[in-house]
Amino acid sequence: MKIDLQTVVCRLRESDDILLLTHRNPDGDAAGSLWALYRLLTKLGKRVTFKLVGKVPENLLFAAEAAPEEFEEKFIVAVDLAETTLLGEALQPVYGDKIDLNIDHHGSNTLFAKETWLEADAAAAAQLVYQLYLVFGAELDVRAAEQLYIGLSTDTGCFRYSNTNAACLYTAAALVEAGIDNGDINRRIFETKSKAYIQFEALAMNNLHLHFDGKCAVMALTKEMFLKTGLDESETHMIAGLPRQVEGVLVGATIKEKDNGLCRVSLRSNEPVDVSAIARAFGGGGHKLAAGCDLYGTLGKATADLLKEIEAALRSYHLL
Amino acid sequence: MKIDLQTVVCRLRESDDILLLTHRNPDGDAAGSLWALYRLLTKLGKRVTFKLVGKVPENLLFAAEAAPEEFEEKFIVAVDLAETTLLGEALQPVYGDKIDLNIDHHGSNTLFAKETWLEADAAAAAQLVYQLYLVFGAELDVRAAEQLYIGLSTDTGCFRYSNTNAACLYTAAALVEAGIDNGDINRRIFETKSKAYIQFEALAMNNLHLHFDGKCAVMALTKEMFLKTGLDESETHMIAGLPRQVEGVLVGATIKEKDNGLCRVSLRSNEPVDVSAIARAFGGGGHKLAAGCDLYGTLGKATADLLKEIEAALRSYHLL
Repeated sequence: MKIDLQTVVCRLRESDDILLLTHRNPDGDAAGSLWALYRLLTKLGKRVTFKLVGKVPENLLFAAEAAPEEFEEKFIVAVDLAETTLLGEALQPVYGDKIDLNIDHHGSNTLFAKETWLEADAAAAAQLVYQLYLVFGAELDVRAAEQLYIGLSTDTGCFRYSNTNAACLYTAAALVEAGIDNGDINRRIFETKSKAYIQFEALAMNNLHLHFDGKCAVMALTKEMFLKTGLDESETHMIAGLPRQVEGVLVGATIKEKDNGLCRVSLRSNEPVDVSAIARAFGGGGHKLAAGCDLYGTLGKATADLLKEIEAALRSYHLL
Repeated sequence: MKIDLQTVVCRLRESDDILLLTHRNPDGDAAGSLWALYRLLTKLGKRVTFKLVGKVPENLLFAAEAAPEEFEEKFIVAVDLAETTLLGEALQPVYGDKIDLNIDHHGSNTLFAKETWLEADAAAAAQLVYQLYLVFGAELDVRAAEQLYIGLSTDTGCFRYSNTNAACLYTAAALVEAGIDNGDINRRIFETKSKAYIQFEALAMNNLHLHFDGKCAVMALTKEMFLKTGLDESETHMIAGLPRQVEGVLVGATIKEKDNGLCRVSLRSNEPVDVSAIARAFGGGGHKLAAGCDLYGTLGKATADLLKEIEAALRSYHLL
């Protein structure tokens, strides 16, 4: 069931012994929102802990929280979690049907939780957690401001993407006023590339191919490229945006070769194309302009399957 | 002489038949601020025209103004102009010592104008022009908001650089509320790369060399690379930021080979290094973290000369 901010406030006031969860392989918004919510609930005098599954990108760890020891939780809150499979294989069977409250901004949210506060227009889950700081009148210390800034900035490509609305920019301004060093944070997150990344990007650019009159660009990221450069998985999120940057491209895709015939696809689009629909065709999901899915088979087969769906999508918009 | 906002308001109220100028090869802040100021003064019922020297980047032209026919100007206003040489060879002899009012945010401003409103903490000249819209109570129409947004966003690398302060983000939020499509503008300015650019970047990355324990990265951009890819000059501003992005780099430089033995250098730094001091050693200038200068000689000689100054700068900070 969907609930509003006021109901969320009541639920959080009433609850204690809280466990926080988010999606596996947490990105900046998942980790940042979870940490900031942990900090808020602690300030409110609650006993809180959290679980993060998979590696948080190294350049976000400066703002990390340490999870207190486990206890028997009485209330489970998820943030930035669109569906239960994204909890990961280990946590889904345990918590998938036990989440009391979900705080999310994904239009594709499956409303799996008992109650869901869903604001699909919010640029990031961090925007919702920031609202909770305001409503509870909690001190916005520098660390909390950093965590919220990480969420806002990473989900908007540092205020570039079209989900960057006025509320998001006002919040960013308030976070800067709270004392964060946003220039330094941006440099860590967006401006710093390891030598391995630079080498990897050069290889990837050579693997960029255009399709459908240049309206689609696909980049294959092979296991060999990872081996050759030693690039860490968590650094590849920056690669996903590259194919869409080519002039005239409406749908950009990266296809990452994983083990056991798994290919992980990241999709990015320009208006009007909704790539979350393409991702859903393969059991994935996401936002209109940024989505993802898993395909099985060789890179060649996965690419061919994906191109078929992209072509159909472009045709459905009369773009081909 | 330096003057404050209140004096600027009086001067603009009193003046008419105004000519607006900015630096040659106008970037987003120069063109955007000039256009928005032109629009403001026109709204105030003034006769105004302007001169732009050199090409405005193609992706900004969607928000361009057409300059009305020339007339005998009675008041000359410059925006975003740090020194008169930047007017360009054609305009400097004519207007260099005739500028009545300069509206600028460069700490290096030489105060050449009769009166200068200098706010060195402002992220962009556009921030100052926005303040004028507020003080004059002028309607902030969508086109003016776009022009100001172009200024703010290009001078901050789309809100990434450390000059992005709270005022800048509040202003950006207000501009979004005024109805601009910031996602679309960002895509045009920051996300769209021509095929020539992508090819050029790949070549440039192969010409990236690290010096001084990886604290300095230098990238040579040869005439041959421009010929081979057909890249337009105006697209190279994005290249200037690349060397600084390598992990551990404190000073990043690009050296662009021009005609007649001229090499144009762009410098970018991370705290604490002040590259405007390095640029000044060669007769150039700019901001602490972004500056530029011209060197004469072969690419090899220019690189060697530049590296000597960079080494001295790193030593002066006890970084070597």
